[in-house]
Amino acid sequence: MTRIAETCARIVDPDASAARAARALLDTKTKPPGSLGRLEELACELAAIHGTALPPLPEKAIVVMGADHGVAQEGVSAYPQAVTGQMLLNFARGGAAINVLARLAGARVVVIDMGVCEPAPRAPEIERRRIGNGTRNITRGPAMTRAQAELAVETGIAIAAELAATGVTLIGVGEMGIANTTAASALVSLFADAAPERVTGRGTGIDDDALRRKTAVVRAALHHNAPTATDPIGALAAVGGFEIAGLTGVMLGAAARRIPVVVDGFICSAAALAAVRLAPRAAGYLVMAHRSAEPGHAIALAALGRTPLLDLGLRLGEGTGSALAMLLVEAALRILHEMATFTSAEVSGRDA
Amino acid sequence: MTRIAETCARIVDPDASAARAARALLDTKTKPPGSLGRLEELACELAAIHGTALPPLPEKAIVVMGADHGVAQEGVSAYPQAVTGQMLLNFARGGAAINVLARLAGARVVVIDMGVCEPAPRAPEIERRRIGNGTRNITRGPAMTRAQAELAVETGIAIAAELAATGVTLIGVGEMGIANTTAASALVSLFADAAPERVTGRGTGIDDDALRRKTAVVRAALHHNAPTATDPIGALAAVGGFEIAGLTGVMLGAAARRIPVVVDGFICSAAALAAVRLAPRAAGYLVMAHRSAEPGHAIALAALGRTPLLDLGLRLGEGTGSALAMLLVEAALRILHEMATFTSAEVSGRDA
Repeated sequence: MTRIAETCARIVDPDASAARAARALLDTKTKPPGSLGRLEELACELAAIHGTALPPLPEKAIVVMGADHGVAQEGVSAYPQAVTGQMLLNFARGGAAINVLARLAGARVVVIDMGVCEPAPRAPEIERRRIGNGTRNITRGPAMTRAQAELAVETGIAIAAELAATGVTLIGVGEMGIANTTAASALVSLFADAAPERVTGRGTGIDDDALRRKTAVVRAALHHNAPTATDPIGALAAVGGFEIAGLTGVMLGAAARRIPVVVDGFICSAAALAAVRLAPRAAGYLVMAHRSAEPGHAIALAALGRTPLLDLGLRLGEGTGSALAMLLVEAALRILHEMATFTSAEVSGRDA
Repeated sequence: MTRIAETCARIVDPDASAARAARALLDTKTKPPGSLGRLEELACELAAIHGTALPPLPEKAIVVMGADHGVAQEGVSAYPQAVTGQMLLNFARGGAAINVLARLAGARVVVIDMGVCEPAPRAPEIERRRIGNGTRNITRGPAMTRAQAELAVETGIAIAAELAATGVTLIGVGEMGIANTTAASALVSLFADAAPERVTGRGTGIDDDALRRKTAVVRAALHHNAPTATDPIGALAAVGGFEIAGLTGVMLGAAARRIPVVVDGFICSAAALAAVRLAPRAAGYLVMAHRSAEPGHAIALAALGRTPLLDLGLRLGEGTGSALAMLLVEAALRILHEMATFTSAEVSGRDA
């Protein structure tokens, strides 16, 4: 049995009895039942994930994986490919949006080079888990070999295990990779069974001409490589990316350890679709951070059957939505931990 | 000139040039232009409010005003009237939802007794600014005298001034008052010109019978007292509440000092409608925290012409939505303050 199959087999359904116990605990608190809406539902979901009515206050880390994409050659992005590595250095130095928002959320940022083009950035803050020097151009063949896709997923599983070993109880995911919305569009088109023109968007901000080209590229990549939704590893190899496959692994590894994963926007949702194809029970461990401005994201969210916490028109990636949503996760858990009860606060209950 | 009129006259339009300067600053940051969506718009709105491209990182306080409502006699709430005072004590002791969420947001909670029924709670953490021993039953006459409504608004103005003097640069508002969704429904019906059945909801969770009764009470209160939208002080006196009028004052006082106000749910939005009727320019100083589960809230938000930041099905009040939204306000400001620029981070810009 491979490490991936072993990990998938270890994922159990979230514990519905713990969710019911959390609901009962919430109903003792000084507020009308259910009046904190989605925060209360979230508290119950977290209880089910952790398997206890009172899950721990979160120790947070955001895994930001970066990699390059050969399909950038097709003119599908508004930015040059060099930006991927430059941004990884920016993450390492603390100057990017994800650094700012992760500091606010009290989350550590773990920066992973999954395969930026050479010359790849070197900094002590960047972990080198390189699968290759960027993927190949998916309009001409598969992005990577099946062995590379497996190695990328296994790398993500290993990172989740390492974070769990250091006491992390809430993992956020984010990504950086010029042209990776193209790869993500192909994956969402495949897994959500939606036409390329429905899921392909403007990414970092391309114009109408580039959008037409990008949509044609997504269609060509799917036609040329002919991935199937029932072989998620094969699909990641055909039209995915090193960072996307890595994030699929992080989600599986976290779910196997009953750690919730806060999933950022469109690209992370493509990784999530691969994860739930590999292990349907993993869906219960995913907290969707937000609905992004990328049009395919709503389709990906619907295919995952999950409602996001925020809707702020974000389309940056990096895990920025995850960082913001982690604040809501902490709010939900603090309500469970810190609120007084009707009895302890001597507050009257509902009229009979 | 009364203090209310003086305050209204001091409110200027937010500074559009400061908003443009903030937009220019954001566009130097290492991200595609506009990719942080609503956070970037919020940063520009805050710049306009403070009149500078780089507004201060927020020093936060949440003003929670409590008062009782004579209309509680009509069986419009699921909870007994004693809960208002009991909850003020809970706020003072730090056990309520607002305390938990304000701690997370780094905001001080300022608890004000605007007129809870006797015996009113006494605790050093509760400021006594009592206008009366609860309002009168609005199905039988006005809630309060015009002088009381003016005093309540002036009290709110004074509280905003006191907070500004202690260095507060971001004010959140919240409320507590058994039956105050009934008063708020009457005000929203009046100011938004919407029928009582469209704006009246279940509040803390009443059943169908009580909802029919509550809707009839709102209709009767408006019929009996005949308030007009062009006399907002008269409307607050007729069908409002001491805490609602007080919050109207906080909003006016904050706007006059160019301090943004984060407005919680349905009841606070009723106070906001009165504030913008008194001073239309005050609208530019309001940050709507969330869309609540109360059906009339969407109508109030539309009448205010403002889009809320969050949509989490909250219906608790107390300022809980304000506390959560303050985290997004801080995020927007930290993006302006802390992100690297393309130049400082040596990241390439868009392709030509």
